[in-house]
Amino acid sequence: MDPGVVARLVAEVHELIRTDRSGELADYIPELAAVQPDSFGLCLATADGRIYGAGDVDEIFTIQSLSKPFTYALALADRGVDTVAEHIDVEPSGDAFNEISLDPVTERPRNPMINAGAITAASLIAGRDSAEKFDRVRRCYSRFAGRELKLNEAVYRSEARTGFRNRAIGYMLRSFGIIESDPDDAVDRYFRQCSLDITCRDLAIMAATMANNGVNPLTRERALSAVLTERVLSVMTTCGMYNAAGDWVTTVGLPAKSGVGGGILAVLPGQIGIAVYSPRLDSHGNSVRGVAACRELSRRLELHFLHVSRAARTAVRADYTVADVPSRLRRSTEEIDLLAVHGHRARVYQLDGDLLFAGAERAVRAIEAKAGELDAVVIDLRRVGEVSRIAVEMLDTLQRELADSGCRTALVDPDARLGHFVSGLAPDDPRGRVFIDRDDATEWCEDVLLARYRPEGETPCTSISIEDHPAVAALAAEDRARLAAQFQTRTIARGEVVAERGSARSGLYLILEGRVRLSFEGADRRIHRLVTLTAGMSFGEIPMLVGSPFVNEARAEAATRLAVLSPEHFDHLAERAPGLKLALLERLAAGAYAQMDAAVRAIAVRGGDY
Amino acid sequence: MDPGVVARLVAEVHELIRTDRSGELADYIPELAAVQPDSFGLCLATADGRIYGAGDVDEIFTIQSLSKPFTYALALADRGVDTVAEHIDVEPSGDAFNEISLDPVTERPRNPMINAGAITAASLIAGRDSAEKFDRVRRCYSRFAGRELKLNEAVYRSEARTGFRNRAIGYMLRSFGIIESDPDDAVDRYFRQCSLDITCRDLAIMAATMANNGVNPLTRERALSAVLTERVLSVMTTCGMYNAAGDWVTTVGLPAKSGVGGGILAVLPGQIGIAVYSPRLDSHGNSVRGVAACRELSRRLELHFLHVSRAARTAVRADYTVADVPSRLRRSTEEIDLLAVHGHRARVYQLDGDLLFAGAERAVRAIEAKAGELDAVVIDLRRVGEVSRIAVEMLDTLQRELADSGCRTALVDPDARLGHFVSGLAPDDPRGRVFIDRDDATEWCEDVLLARYRPEGETPCTSISIEDHPAVAALAAEDRARLAAQFQTRTIARGEVVAERGSARSGLYLILEGRVRLSFEGADRRIHRLVTLTAGMSFGEIPMLVGSPFVNEARAEAATRLAVLSPEHFDHLAERAPGLKLALLERLAAGAYAQMDAAVRAIAVRGGDY
Repeated sequence: MDPGVVARLVAEVHELIRTDRSGELADYIPELAAVQPDSFGLCLATADGRIYGAGDVDEIFTIQSLSKPFTYALALADRGVDTVAEHIDVEPSGDAFNEISLDPVTERPRNPMINAGAITAASLIAGRDSAEKFDRVRRCYSRFAGRELKLNEAVYRSEARTGFRNRAIGYMLRSFGIIESDPDDAVDRYFRQCSLDITCRDLAIMAATMANNGVNPLTRERALSAVLTERVLSVMTTCGMYNAAGDWVTTVGLPAKSGVGGGILAVLPGQIGIAVYSPRLDSHGNSVRGVAACRELSRRLELHFLHVSRAARTAVRADYTVADVPSRLRRSTEEIDLLAVHGHRARVYQLDGDLLFAGAERAVRAIEAKAGELDAVVIDLRRVGEVSRIAVEMLDTLQRELADSGCRTALVDPDARLGHFVSGLAPDDPRGRVFIDRDDATEWCEDVLLARYRPEGETPCTSISIEDHPAVAALAAEDRARLAAQFQTRTIARGEVVAERGSARSGLYLILEGRVRLSFEGADRRIHRLVTLTAGMSFGEIPMLVGSPFVNEARAEAATRLAVLSPEHFDHLAERAPGLKLALLERLAAGAYAQMDAAVRAIAVRGGDY
Repeated sequence: MDPGVVARLVAEVHELIRTDRSGELADYIPELAAVQPDSFGLCLATADGRIYGAGDVDEIFTIQSLSKPFTYALALADRGVDTVAEHIDVEPSGDAFNEISLDPVTERPRNPMINAGAITAASLIAGRDSAEKFDRVRRCYSRFAGRELKLNEAVYRSEARTGFRNRAIGYMLRSFGIIESDPDDAVDRYFRQCSLDITCRDLAIMAATMANNGVNPLTRERALSAVLTERVLSVMTTCGMYNAAGDWVTTVGLPAKSGVGGGILAVLPGQIGIAVYSPRLDSHGNSVRGVAACRELSRRLELHFLHVSRAARTAVRADYTVADVPSRLRRSTEEIDLLAVHGHRARVYQLDGDLLFAGAERAVRAIEAKAGELDAVVIDLRRVGEVSRIAVEMLDTLQRELADSGCRTALVDPDARLGHFVSGLAPDDPRGRVFIDRDDATEWCEDVLLARYRPEGETPCTSISIEDHPAVAALAAEDRARLAAQFQTRTIARGEVVAERGSARSGLYLILEGRVRLSFEGADRRIHRLVTLTAGMSFGEIPMLVGSPFVNEARAEAATRLAVLSPEHFDHLAERAPGLKLALLERLAAGAYAQMDAAVRAIAVRGGDY
């Protein structure tokens, strides 16, 4: 089977880099020098947990310095950012990673990615005793990896036996008061954490967990808070690659950490984790192939974190007035005329993309530019991706500003992305209201306009007699009476269904009072309004004419009075008065035509999406 | 007038930070100590050029060290990345910015943001003589700022008179062969570049130009290539804030540069530029309020470049088969039946969001998951934002992979985002074709399926007689003949308009052969297909019944034969044979009904956008 586009990309990079056999193994303990020098595993993992691997991705090696960001993370979680900052700085160091010295000014380890800082971080882990403290470290790493990691006893014993330099660092830290407890305990924990066995695949999942905001994408377990994940990635950015930070940021541009075991982990926040295992090291102590593979992947896949992904682009996908696109409530002629004059004073804004600060700024700018001319706005948020805290705050302020200038806001925000629930705002809240559906929000804006601009004393006609119904009114007086006599009047309670979707023809319905909503089930399995009909309109023509079932459910939105021509009467009419039936049909066809025209207009304005 | 949401946010931060009067003025030359110590300007500029300012945004100060990234940028453009890299490294330095020393290993200045690196960059500027070289520097900065910047003679003379330390650096660089020409010339240029007058507003536009990929958003002039902009921002990330890089990346998280004149410039690539002017400096030489304001803005507006903007989210907005959503070509019954059986073998994928690597990976992954079951796919790219080079490559590979497995691809890509123009692929290219419209692409996929699965020897019925037309065929033989006699036959050439939008009723049209497209003008002012009708279908019913004009243009897509019932004949029919007219009307209403049903279905599946 074809491996697929991305798997092949990763395999190509692996193949390209594999030929480089330069560099030397770490040899300060025999166990590290005993590995297969030409092993090479490369994994790319997405923030949602898909892993693409090439080469020796399941070969076991010890985590070594790759452990440093994870213990630092646990120390931050255990002690808080401020306490940890009192013990460990975050500045890049010009010194070697195993320097037995502190910053001369601050008298603190320069950062948690050099040994002095890492041992300090190990000393800050919470727990009743050494065993519990190390077990918490191990379990923390395991949450990142999504499986239980185990100690490599041989490597640990070798590190513990030969780690004089790290013991010296431990005692130096104790002498400066940076470590406040037993330095041997902290150093021993550091040796143990460095001796945990991992594979390249584990490391990729650890990187993907960092990319995924601290949540392991496979187990869905949170390994670290989002805020601390960002902090750890920041420190990795300036301090993660020993003394090659500048070159790394320039040519790779990903927060990363390497270890003398030959591993490198790199993270593109929100998107990608990369793991490489290849034990030959360069003069900085970084894996030769690891650096080369990350450089190549970053270049080919354009993963540099400063890569400008796009020019500023509008966050407003569409905007139009309610005169351009009315709601699907079929208004009376008077209301249609009023809205033709004043409809430009209510605008609908469909927002799009992520609402981080820059996107929110563009949206707010666009709405503010028109604010003085508006009585009502719809802000449709259903298509936006991420909504940041600042965007919520900005839109909230905008809403209050608009309210102050007399403009009310209808938010279309079924998932309460802005924190206002549909039921949360009082109907008379001056800021406006929250809706599930843009169409309902548009109708509400029309109502705001009508309430403001309807001439005083004029109330909409809400009830008519059957003889005044447009389907009948145009006939000669004699025909009108004859036809009216065939109809029966029915009263329907609010919420009652007049015709179910799929039901057989049950009559020709003329609305004399109230509101009837025709709805259909979309391909998304949700129920959507096709149109709401009011007094003077009709439905049920098509099933009656064609004999087909109702495509749309008809349900009363309010107490409703109908005049119904039963199928039997309708059929008899053709025999007894074909001219009359023809006249009726022509009236009804006009209604069906208007309905179709509305449907076409609705298609035509859905954001130009054909 | 209300200042607006974002202007107020910036003003709030300005107000908050203004109270801090700590720090000291730079005083190594009298001109710098002579400024107003409590001046404070803060500007935020969007990558599309909108500027929000607070405080002393138009006060003039000298650019000083803020010049360093811009001269480095010009050196990169003049000499190329490799040549510049031979002279200046990109590693953060633990030393002071004005250290008279080079890296002991590389014998190069550690980075272009310390004086040694900046003077080296100044030595690399191209030009016939000193005057031209400096003018090129000045004009480069001016392109970033969008206005002609001018030298402050007093500051320049003062710098030139007292800059012994920088002269020492110049001669040291010359002695190591890093500067290959007259060191006095390079140092003099450096003094001049530091003495250019700017305002906080200028600096904001310079930052916005960097955020906008190197293009000045106000003048639209390119100041620097995108690739070099990314490189300069990378170096600013690790080296821009003197020895506070780690703290800056942790708490602000934006590539930045500061100057002893009191300015700071910070950039969120693709989105935001920030400029601050406040001359009191901290112990690192950075503006006290500048650092505080950037920290506060980054925190409030969530501008940290490692901030995870979103969890991984699908790039496929909708996918469905052509059985779920057929094209708007009205097919024959045989074709409808074939597509009901085989329609699941053609899928439509609507992509969404930015197609950088991670988004493209998700899209490719989704399509590959189904690839084995498909004969054709539509990939609709009209809604995607940025399309990166790697995404183009990945989709291209995917298309070839699909072709190899016998699946053809219809790209909906009117703007040739993938580089294939509509006219660029031969009709028989095995990879597929490019379309403007998703509906046309869907029709093409249906044709692929029909060509594959239509039983051999069976050809679709393409021509009928008027008596066989469904509108007439169901009548009694006698009625049928009577009605048929009223029709006239017309032949229409491909592309010819049968009825213009807005024209009066001109007949009842039955299609006997060929194809007629009904189209309408959308709110987007583009022409869209409502439906294409074929033999056995009809149009013009509604204008005939209701007397209203044609809403849709009717145009022949192929040579077409029509049977037309003229308005006169139609009207007479009511008088002479109302029963016959009624029967005809009922048939036609069925057609109108089917048409409306198709329109409703079309609304219902447009990505669930109601």
